[in-house]
Amino acid sequence: MDFRTVTHTTNEQDHMEPPQMRQKQLSCLQGESEERDKGSTIESFVTNFSNIYESELLPARNGEEFTEHFLHEVVDILLSYIKKTYDGKSKVLDFHHPHQLLEGLEGFNVELSDQPQPLEQILVDCRDTLKYGVKTGHPRYFNQLSSGLDIIGLAGEWLTATANTNMFTFEIAPVFIVMEEILLKKMHEIIGWGECKADGVFSPGGSISNLYSVLVARYKRFPEIKTKGMAALPDIALFVSEHSHYSVKKAAAVLGIGIDNVVTVKCDARGKMIPSELERTILKVKRQGKVPLYVSATAGTTVYGAFDPLDNIADICEKYNLWMHVDAAWGGGLLLSRRHSFKLSGIERAHSITWNPHKLMGVPLQCSAFLVREKGLLQACNQLCAEYLFQPDKQYDRAYDTGDKTIQCGRHVDVFKFWLMWKAKGTQGFEILINRFLELAEYLYKELKTSKNYELVFDAEPELTNVCFWYIPPSLRQIPKGPEREKRLHQIAPKIKARMIEEGTAMVGYQPHGNNVNFFRMVFSNPATKKSDIDFLLEEIERLGKDL
Amino acid sequence: MDFRTVTHTTNEQDHMEPPQMRQKQLSCLQGESEERDKGSTIESFVTNFSNIYESELLPARNGEEFTEHFLHEVVDILLSYIKKTYDGKSKVLDFHHPHQLLEGLEGFNVELSDQPQPLEQILVDCRDTLKYGVKTGHPRYFNQLSSGLDIIGLAGEWLTATANTNMFTFEIAPVFIVMEEILLKKMHEIIGWGECKADGVFSPGGSISNLYSVLVARYKRFPEIKTKGMAALPDIALFVSEHSHYSVKKAAAVLGIGIDNVVTVKCDARGKMIPSELERTILKVKRQGKVPLYVSATAGTTVYGAFDPLDNIADICEKYNLWMHVDAAWGGGLLLSRRHSFKLSGIERAHSITWNPHKLMGVPLQCSAFLVREKGLLQACNQLCAEYLFQPDKQYDRAYDTGDKTIQCGRHVDVFKFWLMWKAKGTQGFEILINRFLELAEYLYKELKTSKNYELVFDAEPELTNVCFWYIPPSLRQIPKGPEREKRLHQIAPKIKARMIEEGTAMVGYQPHGNNVNFFRMVFSNPATKKSDIDFLLEEIERLGKDL
Repeated sequence: MDFRTVTHTTNEQDHMEPPQMRQKQLSCLQGESEERDKGSTIESFVTNFSNIYESELLPARNGEEFTEHFLHEVVDILLSYIKKTYDGKSKVLDFHHPHQLLEGLEGFNVELSDQPQPLEQILVDCRDTLKYGVKTGHPRYFNQLSSGLDIIGLAGEWLTATANTNMFTFEIAPVFIVMEEILLKKMHEIIGWGECKADGVFSPGGSISNLYSVLVARYKRFPEIKTKGMAALPDIALFVSEHSHYSVKKAAAVLGIGIDNVVTVKCDARGKMIPSELERTILKVKRQGKVPLYVSATAGTTVYGAFDPLDNIADICEKYNLWMHVDAAWGGGLLLSRRHSFKLSGIERAHSITWNPHKLMGVPLQCSAFLVREKGLLQACNQLCAEYLFQPDKQYDRAYDTGDKTIQCGRHVDVFKFWLMWKAKGTQGFEILINRFLELAEYLYKELKTSKNYELVFDAEPELTNVCFWYIPPSLRQIPKGPEREKRLHQIAPKIKARMIEEGTAMVGYQPHGNNVNFFRMVFSNPATKKSDIDFLLEEIERLGKDL
Repeated sequence: MDFRTVTHTTNEQDHMEPPQMRQKQLSCLQGESEERDKGSTIESFVTNFSNIYESELLPARNGEEFTEHFLHEVVDILLSYIKKTYDGKSKVLDFHHPHQLLEGLEGFNVELSDQPQPLEQILVDCRDTLKYGVKTGHPRYFNQLSSGLDIIGLAGEWLTATANTNMFTFEIAPVFIVMEEILLKKMHEIIGWGECKADGVFSPGGSISNLYSVLVARYKRFPEIKTKGMAALPDIALFVSEHSHYSVKKAAAVLGIGIDNVVTVKCDARGKMIPSELERTILKVKRQGKVPLYVSATAGTTVYGAFDPLDNIADICEKYNLWMHVDAAWGGGLLLSRRHSFKLSGIERAHSITWNPHKLMGVPLQCSAFLVREKGLLQACNQLCAEYLFQPDKQYDRAYDTGDKTIQCGRHVDVFKFWLMWKAKGTQGFEILINRFLELAEYLYKELKTSKNYELVFDAEPELTNVCFWYIPPSLRQIPKGPEREKRLHQIAPKIKARMIEEGTAMVGYQPHGNNVNFFRMVFSNPATKKSDIDFLLEEIERLGKDL
């Protein structure tokens, strides 16, 4: 289908159209046209949307046919995009700078006006939005921990959008509330918490889930925080590792604890928190007169994919009576793999856990679970009993009104796509997927280890799907290791990345970390990625970087 | 289409099927079947999904046809639901208690298993999920401030799900980042802030937007909060009205300020904050040695739909150097109506504003804007400069990486559906819509005023679409006003609501408020609602309640 590009034609067009034209359109929609037999495909029976406006869609009288046909057109655009996404030969993106997008590209004007645009323009806008976006499901998109486009998850999200409801009460989201309970129970079981006691909530992302962990830990120890604020508390301290995600610090800033009270614990070369360093740091903080409250251990760090030694950390938390949180936003999925779950051994001793199914498990964005071992704590910490939502005289069991557990009021339905994917894959389907991601990481690791053009940031078999490396262009290969080489090496990854984005052939992340200058971080969480895509990426990095 | 209900048959079924069967399915999918001419509809060319699993969808080799056909089946289910939603004769919901849903209904089993389910079961589950849910777009769904199902917004959400990306960087969400900027600028213009200086972010709901307002207000006055926490601050106080939303109190609990430091200001009978009371309360708090920091005025209260006198409140905020926030989550949409926008006069003097397009403007959930007048404050307050996301050596203007403005890391794309609706409706389309909601509220108000069976909670023309009233059943009509009557009246609305839910004929909220016992709160934000639906609701309340 080819839609003419219609821009700014609204004023010149007559909103009313001749009755016979409308009639023809309707007959096409109803599938009654005799033209059908002339060997044309279904797609050729298009309505001309150039004179039709959204006001003629449902709930407009007789809007059913236009609505149906319009949504089918949208779906055709989406299907075409999905196919392109999975086609390794297509580009990952067609890069334009912010000012170019703001100024408007051919037929694509992002400005808003007082006048309505015809549906044809809306369809063009949909196509252009996808055209100038990034195909995060493309087999060569390795840019973030979340990638891929699961078809079942996608269907789930389409349904969620159509249901258009809110998680605050059972009353208006009965099925989704029950699904949230089922999913939380399942995750508790897998963690090893048993199914009855634990609690939790799906939140808008891992950072908010980590914020919940500090919030609940603080409330558990000092329930007066809720009414009196931090003024009633002693100076508290939180502990994270050097390699932990920045969200715990962000939570400390938000919660009025202050970033200075988040104490960083040293890691080993592999990026794992050193338990003896944790203990040393706790004792040091105590000597300073602060009250150690909370440790966030990481199961799958963002950059290195490292797993902190959870059992050792749990021992220390028990010894000093600290809340133990495990940020398994990225690595939590490994619990579904019988081959790899041992890496999270000890997670069952945590008081709370962040686990993002939108990462390793491939659920569409967003889907993040905050799980807490003590039932009722979330509710006690956050409830304010707003009477307009949580009426005490409802006819059903009000324990299913989850809104008062949360720091939100309205809450997006993030569970259905996850539930549907679990139905469609079964637990075993997730296991197969995750094992394959690990195999891809091992393959890349071995390729890099035997290549003279690359250096690994740390030489160890991947524990998660992260593989960190430098590309060493020919110009740097003869320079001895030292500040001069480091300085030049630091510029290589950004330059290659910039060229890669300009060409749109692949996307991979880079960053400096600690003493390590800019290096690439590959991660695998995309079911579409094959070994040949890894081969391509390495060749592409060389192609783009060999003259640097 | 009728799908056989397939439950737990995975183990007994052979995953491999005879080649000729697969061949037949594929030929149907490709539209090559000669059966097409036999007068059957498109819908009859269905694949038999009973032996097909998600592992055969994309990215599986040759998965294109199955994927396309599966998604078309899903869309058919959704279209059928959409049509039912708009059909006033259909039920709003088919109520079941939590335990009934958990135990499983005919063919609908919410439990998850290790084994995958065939796609046919997945389609059945989709239909059942909708069947046992609540039609929030139904013309007789009046339960929450968000209602309706805008077709363009829905299409936008389907596209958003398909694009499956994240708002933290321009790199992976270039078009959506630019659209967010355009929408924020447009909202600033409408508020009267001018387009260049203001700032903001779309957040996961009004409560989080209100939390941002306190966070930013606190940081502006006491920037040391970020590093040192509340320990470095004097005792601060926040001011809200009796009728304000509970989210400011929730924010105070989360942010370590404490609910006790949120001071409630009295309202008049209409639910508007009394400015002289605000000033009196500020002075009282100062005498107690606390530092007044922040006032949240409400433009459209949750229950009464009242507008606080913003100009008077702004005068007081200026006088005492307080941050002025306006919670226009519900009423913000009125700014688009030339007839009604005067009710928010003075909003341009606010330092920050919450405005939820997912309420009065009918954007699908979720879509909430937090707007702040001083550019750069959000970034300064929240940034932590994580190097793995916000690399300083990117090739594009990094001001477009918005992730460090927020308390989240990943952030759902909530802007596209809103942008697309604005394109399709134009500003004038929103105005028409919102004016009509107000007309419906006026119609209901007049109906109630002339009816002997109803009493208004406050007798005043609606300023927003809220209309609050009691139904007085015959048994209460002769009882003089007093505690006995109040006690009995308090039970009427919950009983009628319970019956209404059991019958599924409509949904309307109720609550007590202050000294007023349980009353119904009608709100209009659904484009499908007509005057006849209002007539229906009043008759239905009488039918269900006349024997009480």
